[in-house]
Amino acid sequence: MTRFDTVSMLSDYGHADEFVGVLKAVIRDIAPHVTTLDLTHGIAAFDVRAGSLALARSISYVPNGVILALVDPGAGSARRCLAIEVAGGDGVIIGPDNGLLAPAVSMAGGAELAVELTNADYQLPQIGATFAGRDILAPAAAHICNGVPVSELGTPVDPGSLLPGTVPLSRHDGDDLICEVLWVDRFGNAQLNIGPDDLAEWGDHVQLKVGQPASPQGPEVRRSRRVRSYAELGAGLVGLIVDSNGMVSICLDQRSAADELGIVAGDQVVLSELEAPPASATAVAAPTVRR
Amino acid sequence: MTRFDTVSMLSDYGHADEFVGVLKAVIRDIAPHVTTLDLTHGIAAFDVRAGSLALARSISYVPNGVILALVDPGAGSARRCLAIEVAGGDGVIIGPDNGLLAPAVSMAGGAELAVELTNADYQLPQIGATFAGRDILAPAAAHICNGVPVSELGTPVDPGSLLPGTVPLSRHDGDDLICEVLWVDRFGNAQLNIGPDDLAEWGDHVQLKVGQPASPQGPEVRRSRRVRSYAELGAGLVGLIVDSNGMVSICLDQRSAADELGIVAGDQVVLSELEAPPASATAVAAPTVRR
Amino acid sequence: MTRFDTVSMLSDYGHADEFVGVLKAVIRDIAPHVTTLDLTHGIAAFDVRAGSLALARSISYVPNGVILALVDPGAGSARRCLAIEVAGGDGVIIGPDNGLLAPAVSMAGGAELAVELTNADYQLPQIGATFAGRDILAPAAAHICNGVPVSELGTPVDPGSLLPGTVPLSRHDGDDLICEVLWVDRFGNAQLNIGPDDLAEWGDHVQLKVGQPASPQGPEVRRSRRVRSYAELGAGLVGLIVDSNGMVSICLDQRSAADELGIVAGDQVVLSELEAPPASATAVAAPTVRR
Repeated sequence: MTRFDTVSMLSDYGHADEFVGVLKAVIRDIAPHVTTLDLTHGIAAFDVRAGSLALARSISYVPNGVILALVDPGAGSARRCLAIEVAGGDGVIIGPDNGLLAPAVSMAGGAELAVELTNADYQLPQIGATFAGRDILAPAAAHICNGVPVSELGTPVDPGSLLPGTVPLSRHDGDDLICEVLWVDRFGNAQLNIGPDDLAEWGDHVQLKVGQPASPQGPEVRRSRRVRSYAELGAGLVGLIVDSNGMVSICLDQRSAADELGIVAGDQVVLSELEAPPASATAVAAPTVRR
Repeated sequence: MTRFDTVSMLSDYGHADEFVGVLKAVIRDIAPHVTTLDLTHGIAAFDVRAGSLALARSISYVPNGVILALVDPGAGSARRCLAIEVAGGDGVIIGPDNGLLAPAVSMAGGAELAVELTNADYQLPQIGATFAGRDILAPAAAHICNGVPVSELGTPVDPGSLLPGTVPLSRHDGDDLICEVLWVDRFGNAQLNIGPDDLAEWGDHVQLKVGQPASPQGPEVRRSRRVRSYAELGAGLVGLIVDSNGMVSICLDQRSAADELGIVAGDQVVLSELEAPPASATAVAAPTVRR
Repeated sequence: MTRFDTVSMLSDYGHADEFVGVLKAVIRDIAPHVTTLDLTHGIAAFDVRAGSLALARSISYVPNGVILALVDPGAGSARRCLAIEVAGGDGVIIGPDNGLLAPAVSMAGGAELAVELTNADYQLPQIGATFAGRDILAPAAAHICNGVPVSELGTPVDPGSLLPGTVPLSRHDGDDLICEVLWVDRFGNAQLNIGPDDLAEWGDHVQLKVGQPASPQGPEVRRSRRVRSYAELGAGLVGLIVDSNGMVSICLDQRSAADELGIVAGDQVVLSELEAPPASATAVAAPTVRR
């Protein structure tokens, strides 16, 4: 009796090399009934935080089965490889113990069982010491789909000992709300670490300060407007939108807000409430002010 | 009784983010028997025309089932989401009503039934207002595969009201044939908006004018030769070939013609017939002339 | 009776165009029971050597079935399209006769039967003369999965006549070991054309000379250390590691060795044994010396 028929994968392996393909080959060889599903392999190399955020954004959509997550700057080191049972056994999350899995595990209701993948019977013979994804983690995913109990794959681990993720919190400083850019997507939307509740008492007009106060020009200051769709924005107007993850994102209509404002993931953005402009001004592009 | 087991996907989502993966997760959750097939997700962001052309080039090869096409600069606006039945019910094309689908629908014989996807029973609850692909279009694809009639998914729409695609036509100007580059592929071949019939009365030698007449150097003028395979071309010789879509493409042997000539999609190229060169000249690279 | 249910694919098609998707569509149309598995489509355009190496690195992990490999600068020329039976009939490798397949065929135990794909009954009607992948090779892969004997697909070919691959051999020059970089992966590891046996008689400290002796600065000379995991390396220390293919790779911990040393595939690297440094020196970054 097989247990699962889906392995959802996320990694920083990219598509230039055969890494992803070899993992899928390993899975198919062990568990031919399994369909693999690529969440993304485009996480920047070694970027555990970006990987953990993408996994957290995805997890509520992932079908029952195994999730195999691989962003692992410490590959080949003493860092543990884990299988974590979640959601009453509907899911098993597999990956390194480096914080990558923590936000997703938490969103899935927490770890019910965690095992370090130490049982060599369910691993490939290792050539070199560097490819745990291929030799340890992918085989574990396949064997779990085949019905091997998670507890068979290694040594139980105290779920409380797992390395936590690090999601930066926003904070208030006087009238300012100090935020951080979590993610810039392909279309240039810049997701902040706040939800709409954080702006609940503000009006529709918000000032953004982007960039370092210590830079020669100081931070760039822009007027933005809270909108429900990109199309509400006129050409050049910066918007704040509740995005498809329920977070607040900085956006432009049909253009990259991140390019326009020079934003990358990890940047600080300071928000503050603005008075509504005179009605005649709302239809034109907000002026750019450099202080 | 399920109806289809394939959803063929095309989008401008790229592979850096988890967008494509989340759509596949949504489909697998609703219709686990379905195999998704990626036509491409590498359409340039917001480039509806490039997406519509790639879809048109692909459609005659796509297996029976659902086609899910997503290039949508107006996401979240009033632009309609559609399901269009084609080919006697062998296919259903799903996507935004922005011209993206029109050439493919036309190549598949025209719309037999078109529905705006308004029935919330077959949608995901929306978080934010911005991800119709995940919340409306992918669920519709999955439910159709499960056998839900297209007419159940929303309100009938007059097929004549669908936004048409815009494919630029070539035209004659005296002895010149004014063309446009539809597509530059990975190998640097530049597909023009003409077929071999447009050159039926010409000989094997054709002059190309590339670039803007108004630029300081004027357009670049090159001699090209009509060939049946890249290998017929000597090093550096520019060719005109009937490509694998039956269109005329500008090519070089084992190198990028687009890089060599500085061509991008959307550029104008002017063709005119040339006399055959002296036999001794055909084996050497054609000289580059700048007027 | 179907014969195989997996087609593993490798190409230089990239993901920007619909090439890969159309091949999968063709396969699914002919053999709907088949799952396609992407080894990689990120081989640099026209780079037969890089493709042949990636295929050779992958082949021992690929499940039974068909392997479809497509890197073909001579597409549309007289170059032959082949199907090669290997491993007692457990695998069939399909691709052009340009050296791409040779190392993988050799690793799979050699060609047991080779056929040139000349039987038009198992091909698509060709539009233009340029897309053998779509019109000849992908249909062959699908028909073989359906149980069509390889011998049905065309004319037998003497396996001894297949174009061999070209894998550069390392060589000794006095105390130097002259190597070549086979592959730089996404993480910047630079795989050399040597295995650990080639260094068996050396100690842990190895000098690397990278770059051309004839360049103005001469080659860059660096001290490196043989390690079993990236994590053994301190910040900035260059390592030599037995990688996951059992080859020796130049690496850094959590950074790109190739970027640091300016290495690309095909570069020459000269190794020679070093005395162990004084114990106090091992914990700090090795100095860079330019001769």
